[in-house]
Formats: sequence, C-alpha cells, structure tokens
Amino acid sequence: MLSEEINRVAEEVSAILRGSLTADCSPLYRAAYHLPSQGGKRMRPFLVAKSSELVGGSAKPVIPAAAAVELLHNFTLVHDDIMDNDALRRGVPTVHTVWGMPMAILAGDLMFAKAFQILLRAGGDDRRIRAAADELATATIDLSEGQHLDMSFEERRDVREDEYLAMISGKTAALFRASAKIGAILGGGSDEAVARLGEYGWNMGMAFQIYDDYLGLTSKEDVLGKAIGNDIREGKKTLIVIKGMSSDAAPLLSDALGKKSVPNEKMAALLGHLQENGTFGYVYAKAKSYVDAALGSLSPFPESAARASLFQLAQMAISRKK
Amino acid sequence: MLSEEINRVAEEVSAILRGSLTADCSPLYRAAYHLPSQGGKRMRPFLVAKSSELVGGSAKPVIPAAAAVELLHNFTLVHDDIMDNDALRRGVPTVHTVWGMPMAILAGDLMFAKAFQILLRAGGDDRRIRAAADELATATIDLSEGQHLDMSFEERRDVREDEYLAMISGKTAALFRASAKIGAILGGGSDEAVARLGEYGWNMGMAFQIYDDYLGLTSKEDVLGKAIGNDIREGKKTLIVIKGMSSDAAPLLSDALGKKSVPNEKMAALLGHLQENGTFGYVYAKAKSYVDAALGSLSPFPESAARASLFQLAQMAISRKK
Repeated sequence: MLSEEINRVAEEVSAILRGSLTADCSPLYRAAYHLPSQGGKRMRPFLVAKSSELVGGSAKPVIPAAAAVELLHNFTLVHDDIMDNDALRRGVPTVHTVWGMPMAILAGDLMFAKAFQILLRAGGDDRRIRAAADELATATIDLSEGQHLDMSFEERRDVREDEYLAMISGKTAALFRASAKIGAILGGGSDEAVARLGEYGWNMGMAFQIYDDYLGLTSKEDVLGKAIGNDIREGKKTLIVIKGMSSDAAPLLSDALGKKSVPNEKMAALLGHLQENGTFGYVYAKAKSYVDAALGSLSPFPESAARASLFQLAQMAISRKK
Repeated sequence: MLSEEINRVAEEVSAILRGSLTADCSPLYRAAYHLPSQGGKRMRPFLVAKSSELVGGSAKPVIPAAAAVELLHNFTLVHDDIMDNDALRRGVPTVHTVWGMPMAILAGDLMFAKAFQILLRAGGDDRRIRAAADELATATIDLSEGQHLDMSFEERRDVREDEYLAMISGKTAALFRASAKIGAILGGGSDEAVARLGEYGWNMGMAFQIYDDYLGLTSKEDVLGKAIGNDIREGKKTLIVIKGMSSDAAPLLSDALGKKSVPNEKMAALLGHLQENGTFGYVYAKAKSYVDAALGSLSPFPESAARASLFQLAQMAISRKK
C-alpha cells in the first residue's frame, strides 16, 4: 500500500525533526516544533526517498535531506499563516495564535536555518550535498515569489490562468520539484535523471495544487471539515474561480466571491452551475494533464518498485478524498 | 586607512547585492533591496575578505561569500525590526513600515534564501563551500536563539551578566565568528587557522556589541543622532543597566528604566552617577578584555597586511565614535 510506504518514510523523518527541535525546551523551540509535530501528508519526504531509489540509491541515507525539505515546507506554512492571518492549521491553532507574531516569525527563521543545517550535515559527497542545498535555496526563492503573487491576487478580480499557474508553480510545484531533484542528486543520479525527476516533481506539484483547489469546492462538508464553497467565500483566486469568471456562471460567482455571508443554498446553486457548465470538468482535466506529463517523465526509467510508487503517487495527487 | 579598505570590500559586496536583488522590480524585490541599499558598516564582509587573506587566500574570490553574510545580516535586521516594532533603521523607514508586515516577513525570507544561493553558487571547492554554508546556517540558529533571549529580557528586571553575554553571543558575536571562519575556510586555511579566526571573530563581536551599548549611553546627542540615555528610557537590558542595577545607582536607575518621560536633566544626573561609580569603566574594561582576547587569537599568525588590518579592526570596535 502506498499510504503505508509514505508513513514509513514519514516516521523516520518525524524522528529526525523531533531530535532536532526538542533537545531545547525553550518557548522558541516549542513554537518551532509545533507544526512539524502535527504530521501532515509528508509527500515531499516520500518524493525525496523514492527519487533516490529510482536512480539506484537507497532511501535510508537521504532521510535527513527528506527531513530538511519537510522542515522547510513547514517553515513556509508558519510564515504564510502569519501573512494570511490564519488561525487554524492541521486542526490546531497556528504558531502565531499560540505564541504571538514575533515568536512565530522567529520560529520560522529557526526552522529555515535548521533545514539547511540538517541537509548540510547529512552524509553524502560534498558536490552532491552542495547541489542539493542549492536546490533547496532556489525552491525557497520560488516559494517567496509564489507567495508574493498569491498576496497580490487578493485585491484583484482579473487574475488570468497563466498568472494562477505561475503562482502555484512557485508556491507549490517548486518544492515538489526540488524534493525529487534532491533525492535524485543524493541517490547518485545522472544529470539527465535529475532533470527528468525534477520535471516529474514539478508536474506532480502542479496537479496536486490544482486538484487541492478542486477538492476544496467539490468535496462534501464532512470530508472537508469546513463548509462547502468556503474558498469562494474567502475570495481565493483558484483556477475554478478564474475559469468560472469567464463562463456563464460569472454573474452568480461575482456576486458570491469574497462574501462570507453567502448562504449555503445559494452556494450550492452556484457550485451546481459550475458543475453543469463544465468548469469543474475543465479544472479536473487540467490537473490530469499535469499528472500525465509527470508520468511521461517517469516512463524512460526502467521498471522498478520505486517507479511504481512514484506512478501511484502522481495518480493519488488527483484521486485523493482530502 | 582601514575605513578605505572596508569601503573597497563594501563596494564590491554592494554590487553583488544590487545584481541579485534588482533584476526583478516587483514590490517583493524592492522590499528585499531596501535595507541592503542603505549601506551599513559592512564589517562582516570585511572580516570574510581579510580572514581569507590572512590564511593565504585572496579577497576577490570570497566576495560572493562576503555578500551572502551581509545579506543574511540584513535579513535578520528586517525581521528584528518587525518583532521589535521599530520604525527607523539607518535613518530610513523600516521595511514593514513602508511595505507592511506580511511583505516584510516575505522579503526577509527571500533575503535569507538568496544569501544561501549566493554562497552555494560562489566559486570554490565543494568541501569548503559546504562547510561555509554550514557555518552560515549555524550562525542563523545562534542568531535566532539570541533574538529570543533578547525578547525574553523585555519583561525582566533581573537579567544577569552571564545571560546578557549569552544573548549578545547569539545575536551579534555568532555571525562575526561565522564571517571570519567562512573567510578562513574559503581561503584554504587549516582547521586550526579556521578555529583561531573563529575565536577572533567571536571575541571581536562581543567587544563590538558591548561597546555599542556603551556608546549608546556615553556619546553626545549630536554624535548619536538621538537623545542621550534613550537605551535606558526604552528599558534595554544592556551591560551598563545590569551592572548599574547592582551598584549604588540602582534606585535612580530603577526609577528611570523603561520610562519614556524621564527628563534630560534627571537622565544626565543618572549617567553622571554611573560614570562616577565606575559602571561605565567596568563595561568599557569588559569590552576591552574581549578585544585583547581577539588580538591574542591573531598573534600566532605571522605578520602580514591582513593581520595588521584585523588588529586595527578589533581596536576600532572599541574606539569608534558611532
């Protein structure tokens, strides 16, 4: 089972994060460990591990690098939650809600620095560790640019599809790409294998994010853990919203976008309309096209257990329930 | 002249930072370039350059690393200014004052990531670049811990001297140490030379910070650019305050500490008292003892122009006017 495989890597990664962040019990370290201790999907560490295996390396030696990637991801969530003023994450109060904004900024900075330290001190030859650290730094630059785009969308209603794709490329796909490349680099992959796995990771990340936005508007309330249509009430510029705004649902959608008070009945009618006029279908097909591209990047690799896992992971990206 | 030597390195560093942060003219990059474009003392880059020269390397190849250290320093200032809610830095409005808090957090994160990218892409053998990047990550962890201690001092009046020293060790001396070590590592220094320059840098940083706090309470208003005694009005737990609280000036000091409204006359009397009862003298001697230790770390190196510059730099740390 894929989920069991993911959990195995996740547990080893969790042990490293626990070791790195709980030796010191000051409020700063408790704040830094708050989010990583809550789990999460741990898809990025799995990508690191399987990419290493795919190029002939093994998973074990790249676990510290996998932990570094996961910690970096968590750092960006801590800072994003401050910027977006979000009170909850993974079902628990966000770091700034518990410890205050200054401590949350600082805890994020500490997580960022620890991520690099963990990677730089991992076993592995110097050239490969250096290249992996460069991937991590570069992905963080992309992440910052993606978050900046996302923030700039807040006051806009005319966001285009290409702008949305550029935003999720930075905010999500860049770190998926880096995860796959880091695994391939440290596993001893050729430049070509590294590039190919990078493409796989990036396409997987694009599919993952588009489908995430899709799920947010098509799932039932009890699966999602929040009211249906909330992304629309919050005014999020998802691909569904962007596409819907140029469909015959535009008047209804425009009316509801960014309005917290939209009643559930009206929201259900709007979502039904977006279903019928093909908006949901378009967005799902878009996610699927990225999955197809991801699978295409894998096909030149010979068959192996790792390749099968990465195939499954890409398919899971657009078939999961939450 | 030492200041001319420092300026020469500073200009080359500034060119790298300009190149790295002005290619993109988005608000995010403008926010990230805001503080580096204002200059600053640029002591850390100078330390990188001279440490490389001292161990037989040259300054030129380590300029990117020097720029990375300076950018990392600037990133911590941007985030510290948010945490401390400071409106001015280097005579201009802080990043969060101009672009708002979310953008300032993000700009800082971008600067942090760029610092690592610049260092990792600098010329130099993989083993040495990896070790240098580890120094940078480790110093950032120390910086976070130092800033955390500093924040925890705000509500306390019983801060001890050893706690103050631990705080400035993290907040200031750690990055001076890393700067010297990075220069020595990339310059091709032996492990012993790297360790010795690390000691030099750390001691210099301790002296620099203690003398900074000393200057803040002993300089004339026109040199300082702010009213005398402001550190006391703001309740800062400097070594002068800590030492003064266990002297016969304690009642006067306790009365003035953290009170914005203390009139200049009363402040002048308090400062006069701290001068007479030896508090200032004690603190200056403490700073000088760190300079002596720094010079001691240099003495095993054979005489050279670089050693003479580093000698002068340490002496400047406790003789500058501002």
